[in-house]
Amino acid sequence: MKVAIVMGSDSDLPVMQQAIDILKEFEIETEVDIVSAHRTPEKLFDFSTNAHKRGVSVIIAGAGGAAHLPGMVASMSPLPVIGVPVKSSNSIDGWDSVLSILQMPGGVPVATVALNGAKNAGILAAQIIGATNSTVLDSIVAYKEGLKSKVIEAAERVKTSQQEK
Amino acid sequence: MKVAIVMGSDSDLPVMQQAIDILKEFEIETEVDIVSAHRTPEKLFDFSTNAHKRGVSVIIAGAGGAAHLPGMVASMSPLPVIGVPVKSSNSIDGWDSVLSILQMPGGVPVATVALNGAKNAGILAAQIIGATNSTVLDSIVAYKEGLKSKVIEAAERVKTSQQEK
Amino acid sequence: MKVAIVMGSDSDLPVMQQAIDILKEFEIETEVDIVSAHRTPEKLFDFSTNAHKRGVSVIIAGAGGAAHLPGMVASMSPLPVIGVPVKSSNSIDGWDSVLSILQMPGGVPVATVALNGAKNAGILAAQIIGATNSTVLDSIVAYKEGLKSKVIEAAERVKTSQQEK
Amino acid sequence: MKVAIVMGSDSDLPVMQQAIDILKEFEIETEVDIVSAHRTPEKLFDFSTNAHKRGVSVIIAGAGGAAHLPGMVASMSPLPVIGVPVKSSNSIDGWDSVLSILQMPGGVPVATVALNGAKNAGILAAQIIGATNSTVLDSIVAYKEGLKSKVIEAAERVKTSQQEK
Amino acid sequence: MKVAIVMGSDSDLPVMQQAIDILKEFEIETEVDIVSAHRTPEKLFDFSTNAHKRGVSVIIAGAGGAAHLPGMVASMSPLPVIGVPVKSSNSIDGWDSVLSILQMPGGVPVATVALNGAKNAGILAAQIIGATNSTVLDSIVAYKEGLKSKVIEAAERVKTSQQEK
Amino acid sequence: MKVAIVMGSDSDLPVMQQAIDILKEFEIETEVDIVSAHRTPEKLFDFSTNAHKRGVSVIIAGAGGAAHLPGMVASMSPLPVIGVPVKSSNSIDGWDSVLSILQMPGGVPVATVALNGAKNAGILAAQIIGATNSTVLDSIVAYKEGLKSKVIEAAERVKTSQQEK
Amino acid sequence: MKVAIVMGSDSDLPVMQQAIDILKEFEIETEVDIVSAHRTPEKLFDFSTNAHKRGVSVIIAGAGGAAHLPGMVASMSPLPVIGVPVKSSNSIDGWDSVLSILQMPGGVPVATVALNGAKNAGILAAQIIGATNSTVLDSIVAYKEGLKSKVIEAAERVKTSQQEK
Amino acid sequence: MKVAIVMGSDSDLPVMQQAIDILKEFEIETEVDIVSAHRTPEKLFDFSTNAHKRGVSVIIAGAGGAAHLPGMVASMSPLPVIGVPVKSSNSIDGWDSVLSILQMPGGVPVATVALNGAKNAGILAAQIIGATNSTVLDSIVAYKEGLKSKVIEAAERVKTSQQEK
Repeated sequence: MKVAIVMGSDSDLPVMQQAIDILKEFEIETEVDIVSAHRTPEKLFDFSTNAHKRGVSVIIAGAGGAAHLPGMVASMSPLPVIGVPVKSSNSIDGWDSVLSILQMPGGVPVATVALNGAKNAGILAAQIIGATNSTVLDSIVAYKEGLKSKVIEAAERVKTSQQEK
Repeated sequence: MKVAIVMGSDSDLPVMQQAIDILKEFEIETEVDIVSAHRTPEKLFDFSTNAHKRGVSVIIAGAGGAAHLPGMVASMSPLPVIGVPVKSSNSIDGWDSVLSILQMPGGVPVATVALNGAKNAGILAAQIIGATNSTVLDSIVAYKEGLKSKVIEAAERVKTSQQEK
Repeated sequence: MKVAIVMGSDSDLPVMQQAIDILKEFEIETEVDIVSAHRTPEKLFDFSTNAHKRGVSVIIAGAGGAAHLPGMVASMSPLPVIGVPVKSSNSIDGWDSVLSILQMPGGVPVATVALNGAKNAGILAAQIIGATNSTVLDSIVAYKEGLKSKVIEAAERVKTSQQEK
Repeated sequence: MKVAIVMGSDSDLPVMQQAIDILKEFEIETEVDIVSAHRTPEKLFDFSTNAHKRGVSVIIAGAGGAAHLPGMVASMSPLPVIGVPVKSSNSIDGWDSVLSILQMPGGVPVATVALNGAKNAGILAAQIIGATNSTVLDSIVAYKEGLKSKVIEAAERVKTSQQEK
Repeated sequence: MKVAIVMGSDSDLPVMQQAIDILKEFEIETEVDIVSAHRTPEKLFDFSTNAHKRGVSVIIAGAGGAAHLPGMVASMSPLPVIGVPVKSSNSIDGWDSVLSILQMPGGVPVATVALNGAKNAGILAAQIIGATNSTVLDSIVAYKEGLKSKVIEAAERVKTSQQEK
Repeated sequence: MKVAIVMGSDSDLPVMQQAIDILKEFEIETEVDIVSAHRTPEKLFDFSTNAHKRGVSVIIAGAGGAAHLPGMVASMSPLPVIGVPVKSSNSIDGWDSVLSILQMPGGVPVATVALNGAKNAGILAAQIIGATNSTVLDSIVAYKEGLKSKVIEAAERVKTSQQEK
Repeated sequence: MKVAIVMGSDSDLPVMQQAIDILKEFEIETEVDIVSAHRTPEKLFDFSTNAHKRGVSVIIAGAGGAAHLPGMVASMSPLPVIGVPVKSSNSIDGWDSVLSILQMPGGVPVATVALNGAKNAGILAAQIIGATNSTVLDSIVAYKEGLKSKVIEAAERVKTSQQEK
Repeated sequence: MKVAIVMGSDSDLPVMQQAIDILKEFEIETEVDIVSAHRTPEKLFDFSTNAHKRGVSVIIAGAGGAAHLPGMVASMSPLPVIGVPVKSSNSIDGWDSVLSILQMPGGVPVATVALNGAKNAGILAAQIIGATNSTVLDSIVAYKEGLKSKVIEAAERVKTSQQEK
């Protein structure tokens, strides 16, 4: 029960760290690596074909521009692959990252999240594990309650500040 | 170990049927329903808050236009939710469906697949179950081998027909 | 004769404040709250089904990204709902906010205004009340005269500065 | 208590007829006219400045391409103006119609509905009247119940047909 | 032989000034005014129907967002109207300005230039006058020679700097 | 006083014919030619540098895809050049044609009309001639009156047919 | 001196055949194969790492949707790789194909041609060979002359038909 | 065996310098010039028709906005032309540059690289030369090994820093 988080470049780490952090909150083991579809194809092959054999349950892959990493991992692994489109410096406003991850052909899905949505990728990985693990499922239910509380508190602050005006 | 497939309108069924069919191929139980975020909000609430309590492990939700169904289901269920953007008749080339499913805020992920990618939604649901179920994982490995064989055969046909020219 | 202004997050307040302010100018009563479609679905349900029962005439709802709040409020309230697409930090240039508010299916309209157009949402709410309230209608006529005067003055300044060049 | 429906060209009528029809269902009086911002500017001026003086409460304006009619009517009328972007033959996939109606400057709102969303424009007009007219408000509540029933029925049909497979 | 330059708001002046300046270079008389299609519709009407009667030959109109000024002037004036899409603060990356000026219906052309292309609007106005005025035509020929010289000089600088590396 | 109409390919003729036809209506002499920027660059040079020397006053150039013809003609001719973006078969929905004609750099304007807007290109050419030719100006005023009449008649038909329903 | 043409699916063949045909016209040897990045990753690896070892000089790769084939071949081959974005049935108007081929990261270029531009891919491959092969270079010069002649002939036909009107 | 690098303006040099630098790394001779399709058409003509006669093997052309330089060079030279879309200051997010370079008509290809992808243009030029030059081919193989090493090293750094957290 481990989640592997890979990214195409270390410049993607500031975005992808959010996936690592939220998984730690859920007390789910992670492994992190840089695997470039375009610069380390052998490593890509090796990583993708072996991940499920060494206890990885879910793979999160983030990349920018013509982002081929998530789709190529998905082509070689039987595990669910979550793709994070990263808005990299030379991206055309993120559209290239989004479309080259999302629009996979029939037979090879990538579970795509929002542009720079690494946090949601981590939560989705936890939900996938929670689908058959009631402890994790309970953590997710609790996490959602926490989200709710924060909104309720913010609502109170806003109402108070409006009345004071 | 059941996958629920919901859609916003019966006009989405021709697309969503592909998810149902592929899950049958993987011998995974399905339940199918029409749940409109905008026209049956009570049913939406009821479905979303209870699915995980009656044995559903993964939810696939398809909708077109300003597609709120996948995100709203995700807001109320702790289960992994797969969103299928449907290119409906009044959609602006599918962009509205894609963006209103994909771009979920932090905390509430939807695992989005390609426009009209219901088949991939089904496969992804199977992969999510396969993440902790080795029988299903083996089926996926076998399914991917089948995809490979079809491409190899098509390649032979193309090579032969080119030589005959 | 009251306008409710809700938003998905307190980070939307700087934009949405413009709706509140212009309604104060028109001396129309407002109530302000944070209601997150994705994080507080019960509050959403409660707010939407009850607003018209406690004297609210028009609802203004603002949200960013995959913005489901305006549409979901519209699905449960018989009142006119004005949607404000907010250009939030992770939005894809605002397109996601615009399309997920505007492209509502047949039967459930949202009166959408421009990206970050909260001021116009406030004016529109006043116009809706003015449609059957001649005092408010007169205020709108006066407001429009004011807009005109400002342009006429700006035109004079520009003409003068051009002649001085 | 009358709704005026204007459009830029008689080629917009097949789309705009849906607004007329739904308003008839709500038993709200309508007047229909062709007013071209670009070809009959005097008529535009006359229509816009006088509508509220002869009992019109809400204006629905539909146009395609560089669609200036809704915004120009809004510039001269104190009434709420609902804009319907029409996907006309030479439109660039409807984007021109949508953006030139939606993106109005501060001070002059247009309540924009979905591309070709004339039906929703009609419902929104009814909701605006219903904001201060309880008979119409009740009709809208009933209309929404009707939408719900149709979805419930469709859901039953789909469930039955899936079981028969 | 005069060119009128109008804009929707004084916030458009920094862009539109480039049209004024280049026309001064060509020694063509200009008049400058602020005419808001949405806030001063009577002034718009007056300006557009009278410009050709008081010696204006060409009109340049700039506006941002849902930019209706150029098209509305063109609807009421028989003169050639040049439209300048301005990338205003709330524009969606300029697309709204471009499309609402460019996509005019059959019968009412607007000669559209690039986003923020006010300088080119001025040159185009000069070319229109030059079409039947040989002095101005000669100035344009000379202006184009000047452009050429600047490129030739820049090319020399670049070649020299490359060799020094 | 002649208008030259050139296009990149004879497949553009069905669109460009509308410019020819409307200019005939205005009794303005035309010359028509096929000049491909990419396949007949010498002809392009020859045409562009000489047009103004043999009595052409305005040039209309239409092309699709990466449409370089209008801009290249404008680079070599001092005359006003009107560009018509043509939605050719391999165009990406017309965006390529529009942007490669519209977005000309400072110094070299192209007066761009709507996608497939050849009719408007013809009218604009007439307006350019009319800027210094009162006979043509009068024709344009008359033409606009004709547009108005057609709308008024269509309005009558629509009103009558609505009443008969 | 051989050009390899690969495509992701036999459904891409109608488009890609144009590359094969034009290369035959240039009498350049071709080999054709189907290599799916997502369904036959081992074949992709094998093809890409070996092509230059068996006499292939240029690779043309065509794919649709999230098109990873051209980029992945480029990641593993030192040869120039030409990418053809194919507008496949589930593509979002071709944007996904274009962006996922074009927007390659620094270090791994793909020479991208127009959407469905397989013919141009073939010509570009010939030009690459012609860069160091004068016989092929001469064929290209001749080919371009042929293009010119066809335009000249079409121009004559159009001129004649205009005069006959 | 020389690569010519041309650009439309010296403001493109900061981007285009990356092509020059990488070619120096590959020890391939370069010549650099500024050739503006729109301001120096004669120079464009001269450069394009003669480059292959004086030993240039590949041409790299960069331009922004309505970028006609690469396509016009390709129309007059039999050599392979690599186009670099430059995101210039007045570009609409780079879309204009990309589309006006990429979408060339049949017969006249431009090998387009990513927005601002001048470095990749240089590598592609080296690959084109390497297609028939084994020394350059070996350099490219070595270059790709270098890319791989950098990723492997970055991966080690990331793994170490994650463990230290």
